[in-house]
Amino acid sequence: MSTTPRIDVNAVRDSLYGKWKTERLEARRVASDPRFQTIPGQSMEDHRARVLEQLGGLVEAGAIQRAYPSDLGGSDNHGGNIAAFQELVFADPSLQIKSGVQWGLFGAAILHLGTRTHHEKWLPDVISLKLPGAFAMTEIGHGSDVASVATTATYDPGAEEFEIHTPFRGAWKEFLGNAALHGQAAVVFAQLITGGVNHGVHAFFVPIRTPEGELLPGVGAEDDGVKGGLNGIDNGRLHFTNVRIPRENLLNRYGDVAPDGTYSSHIESPGRRFFTMIGTLVQGRVSLDGSAANAMKGALAIALRYGAERRQFPGPDGRDTVLLDYGLHQRRLLPRLAETYAVAFAGHRLLETFDEVFSGANDTDENREDLETLAAALKPLSTWAALDVLQEAREATGGAGFIAKNRLTGWRADLDIYVTFEGDNNVLLQLVGKRLLTDYAAQFKDGDVAAIAKAVAGQIGEGAVRFGLRQIGQSIADLGQVARSVEGVRDESAQRELLADRVQTMVAAIAMALRESTKDLPKERRAAASAAAFNAQQAKLIDAARAHGELLQWEAFTEALADFSGDTLTVMTWLRDLFGLSLIEKHAAWYLVNGRLSGSRVEAVTAYIDRLLGRIREQALDLVDAFDLTPELLRAEIATGIEAERQAEAHAHVEARIADGTWPIHEKELRKRAQAVS
Amino acid sequence: MSTTPRIDVNAVRDSLYGKWKTERLEARRVASDPRFQTIPGQSMEDHRARVLEQLGGLVEAGAIQRAYPSDLGGSDNHGGNIAAFQELVFADPSLQIKSGVQWGLFGAAILHLGTRTHHEKWLPDVISLKLPGAFAMTEIGHGSDVASVATTATYDPGAEEFEIHTPFRGAWKEFLGNAALHGQAAVVFAQLITGGVNHGVHAFFVPIRTPEGELLPGVGAEDDGVKGGLNGIDNGRLHFTNVRIPRENLLNRYGDVAPDGTYSSHIESPGRRFFTMIGTLVQGRVSLDGSAANAMKGALAIALRYGAERRQFPGPDGRDTVLLDYGLHQRRLLPRLAETYAVAFAGHRLLETFDEVFSGANDTDENREDLETLAAALKPLSTWAALDVLQEAREATGGAGFIAKNRLTGWRADLDIYVTFEGDNNVLLQLVGKRLLTDYAAQFKDGDVAAIAKAVAGQIGEGAVRFGLRQIGQSIADLGQVARSVEGVRDESAQRELLADRVQTMVAAIAMALRESTKDLPKERRAAASAAAFNAQQAKLIDAARAHGELLQWEAFTEALADFSGDTLTVMTWLRDLFGLSLIEKHAAWYLVNGRLSGSRVEAVTAYIDRLLGRIREQALDLVDAFDLTPELLRAEIATGIEAERQAEAHAHVEARIADGTWPIHEKELRKRAQAVS
Repeated sequence: MSTTPRIDVNAVRDSLYGKWKTERLEARRVASDPRFQTIPGQSMEDHRARVLEQLGGLVEAGAIQRAYPSDLGGSDNHGGNIAAFQELVFADPSLQIKSGVQWGLFGAAILHLGTRTHHEKWLPDVISLKLPGAFAMTEIGHGSDVASVATTATYDPGAEEFEIHTPFRGAWKEFLGNAALHGQAAVVFAQLITGGVNHGVHAFFVPIRTPEGELLPGVGAEDDGVKGGLNGIDNGRLHFTNVRIPRENLLNRYGDVAPDGTYSSHIESPGRRFFTMIGTLVQGRVSLDGSAANAMKGALAIALRYGAERRQFPGPDGRDTVLLDYGLHQRRLLPRLAETYAVAFAGHRLLETFDEVFSGANDTDENREDLETLAAALKPLSTWAALDVLQEAREATGGAGFIAKNRLTGWRADLDIYVTFEGDNNVLLQLVGKRLLTDYAAQFKDGDVAAIAKAVAGQIGEGAVRFGLRQIGQSIADLGQVARSVEGVRDESAQRELLADRVQTMVAAIAMALRESTKDLPKERRAAASAAAFNAQQAKLIDAARAHGELLQWEAFTEALADFSGDTLTVMTWLRDLFGLSLIEKHAAWYLVNGRLSGSRVEAVTAYIDRLLGRIREQALDLVDAFDLTPELLRAEIATGIEAERQAEAHAHVEARIADGTWPIHEKELRKRAQAVS
Repeated sequence: MSTTPRIDVNAVRDSLYGKWKTERLEARRVASDPRFQTIPGQSMEDHRARVLEQLGGLVEAGAIQRAYPSDLGGSDNHGGNIAAFQELVFADPSLQIKSGVQWGLFGAAILHLGTRTHHEKWLPDVISLKLPGAFAMTEIGHGSDVASVATTATYDPGAEEFEIHTPFRGAWKEFLGNAALHGQAAVVFAQLITGGVNHGVHAFFVPIRTPEGELLPGVGAEDDGVKGGLNGIDNGRLHFTNVRIPRENLLNRYGDVAPDGTYSSHIESPGRRFFTMIGTLVQGRVSLDGSAANAMKGALAIALRYGAERRQFPGPDGRDTVLLDYGLHQRRLLPRLAETYAVAFAGHRLLETFDEVFSGANDTDENREDLETLAAALKPLSTWAALDVLQEAREATGGAGFIAKNRLTGWRADLDIYVTFEGDNNVLLQLVGKRLLTDYAAQFKDGDVAAIAKAVAGQIGEGAVRFGLRQIGQSIADLGQVARSVEGVRDESAQRELLADRVQTMVAAIAMALRESTKDLPKERRAAASAAAFNAQQAKLIDAARAHGELLQWEAFTEALADFSGDTLTVMTWLRDLFGLSLIEKHAAWYLVNGRLSGSRVEAVTAYIDRLLGRIREQALDLVDAFDLTPELLRAEIATGIEAERQAEAHAHVEARIADGTWPIHEKELRKRAQAVS
């Protein structure tokens, strides 16, 4: 007799908490306190005031100091800091992001771009919230293109001051949390000009308001007003008219100006210097990635618990069918459950890499670069996935999901901006794509078009290719030729090869197209032709970067299987297979066009996914329990069992009326009986 | 020399206005009046009060009477009424939907389900808003399954009254606009019970509040509170405890109860009677379909105008590139522009069919059934497309798109619920799928499995199959065998055949799977096996229904081409091709698996789409101008040219500083020069 396996919920729970379980539990305790929780429908003004007060509460609770140096009251705990931050999405994303502005951007910029004097001078007040600040990087005219900001910081050796200046409206700093109301200072990114030379973007500490909230001379601010979400944050614009700051307010870890105006930096290349400075800000992406994973957990906990109780339309037994027993409902929610696990496990790996770099345990240039690529690949996938899952959960719970107190619409509105801030998702994926191309090109002799052509055909053989963070092996072009069955695709190595081969082949094809575009051109026409060719390949490059991110997620899920054994391993392997095969099904057209899978094999994949859905359906509530989301964290009425109670009441009512003979007969039944008699 | 064609914007504009241009323009004048417009960030209380006041304004403006009988102050103009309603999405979706509750649901139920006495008694006050009302159909326990509502209306011949009663919490009426605050009466859907027999769901007029807002005895109400959007509407719950209403309050057009309790109806079958009553409510779906089209126009007008000005990242000429010149940006927005036109044209056809039925010009059972299928197929596609387009427009405009005053997030939040109300989209598509199966089965002799098998293989030949509203012809299984080129797929007939064949083959495959599931079973096991098989096919059936809707959209677009000539026809044909080929590309996996297209043909489709994108990019602003969205309707700062002004200012600033020699040289340039010298 075959019995349904049961997972060890505690084992899965611990695996999902990951390395910083203690910090996550501490943050969840904070998020469980009503003082820190969203009140749906609050006015923007009230919400902003409340969130500011909540930030004070976080300080009191000791919830935000972890990443700061021990001698300033912190604990040098970089991974734990971000892990805790990620859990605040259960309290209120406005609270989360405003705390991110204060301690993860404003404070972290002073910490990572400034030096000891700056730390001692400002960080205690930043940590205590005595000094709320803004992170003034983005400008109206230059969203994700930080290198092009137009604000200037011109050094005046006579006064030993920088003059911070906004030359035109497009250079206004924009979308800055704390800018509209609460910020008293800002870390301003500006072109550093000294002696008539522009040394590129640097960060400056600029006071902007008195503690009483009066703007300082030369500083202008404008309120961004109501937004699509995150209305607990006072986003706004800042501009500067010849605002003077002391020379020492340059955050000078990577570049400094002597009193006489001489510029110096231990990083010679201005490009590398810029990317090093910007690289210290990767923690924003890491933070959002795990926050997205948490919102996905919340959404699915709500939709699956409700779907396992809710009944609609009579089945063959006369009783309404439970939503989660519908084939479509399983298709809508269960692959997303698998994806949520994949996003969570990939997020752990990202956070661990982040901690290695920032703790200094493994702070090599290579690991730093890998961290940035990993973050740029995973943050887009997870933040988009969060919006997708929140929306599907909203629709799967119908009108009930649209009521604010059931949480889904609030998270959806707040997390909307996660896909374009801390780096627009498409811009980040393009960075990943460029890295893939660079790594790919690095292995070929310059101009070796034949080698690339061979790679495009998927015939690389032993010459393994390094893709960003991955080693990818042999060709699997023969996979499609095996007889009709899912056997050849469902095992782990086949999934890995299919996913990895797709990245490899896409990148090779783009590389060849780019090379072909200029190869017979005279030198003076190459730049334009190359730009045009790159533009023509842009959408494909981003697809390739996405495929790379999906591979990373799949591998993280697969590595996580090592945490489990027995029934738990069986179920988690099904879930990993559901994730992997869903990716292959999603990209079936690519596999077919490129001869990797036959049509019948694609159909077999779909059929096997359907079988997996039937199995995972039985595990869905346990897999949701492993998220460990208490009622205080979830706070969604429809996930409390209220629906099952109502149904029990309805059922009992009908049964009682049938028993006492007062249940009216339906006209349909009467007509049937009449027909039977006649 | 080839010149770029230019469209006749006025011709396209008129085509997009369609048959009820006058009414649409009247409604746009209303929507252009600030009194009727959204104020972002209003509190729920203020927003509700404002929208109620706006409803009064609509009455004064003569904006809502059109569908009512002439002798009651209306103009029997059903199509024009809905056309005007659809334009109100530019004012405020809350205003739109609350007016829909009052006049399109509450009032329309009295009009269509009631008889002359009811019309004379209540409609004048409904029209004048003296009598605000709720439409009490949905129950907590039964969202889209109206036949299962549990509220009872039990006739008492002694008192000649119905007793309206809510037997348990799951039977509370839920999500009703006007229920929380403003409704003084409700049309309540309840099981009509007389003489111990349940005659199924009927509608009853039930007073619920005094004009002063006091709930009447036995009536309970609860506020749904803050929602994900549409917060200008006072949604709530209603329940009834033995509430007595006169016998005459039964809306008795399709079923009546005599004083002695005898039930009568001119529709004998209870099932058909129910669907006839419910069928009168199709106008909600028609209304939402066109509203979705309008929101798509608004979103793309904003994103494309901004994208045509906004610059990011330096191109090879040193100037930042216009977003819309990026390959990815074109891929993101232009196929959605084509889809918007398809949705708009399909919406015209739906509205014309609606008008034919409701005006009586062509009110046959068959046309009524076709109308319902058409609405059930198109409303899901258009409302989902609206959310997709609003979100892509939001992301394509970055942080600016997240600011409420730029409109996108507000529409996105409000229209979210459009995908699950007036029929959950998936439930509607399942209805369409069932209709496709029924029509398909009707042409075969009972049990003729061989014939179905033949159909599945796509070999039907001359035996044309009727699919819902479409006649679909011969097999095109040979299309994939032509040499590598797009020639065979890009012309109109090839697009039609590919799209139609897909619907046909999917439906045939499902039909065969369903038949196979029971054919060797004993009778007593068939019901369960059949239900299980249907459930296993559910996701595929919904895919087939969606494919059917896409075919309808494509055909409507193709029919609309008859409105154009010359350059305009050329461009509109490109746009239709972009729509059709994008559908084929989206479903490439299906075409490949089923042998309809070869891999190289699929690649040729993608390459041709890329060429079309380059052409349509040049037409994008004209195609948006044809939406005729004035600044008063659009009200999005980023679509006003402000971005181009800011850039001109920035450009002038830089030029002037270069001219006067004060533009600082960049360190990168200095290093280059130093290298050149050494």
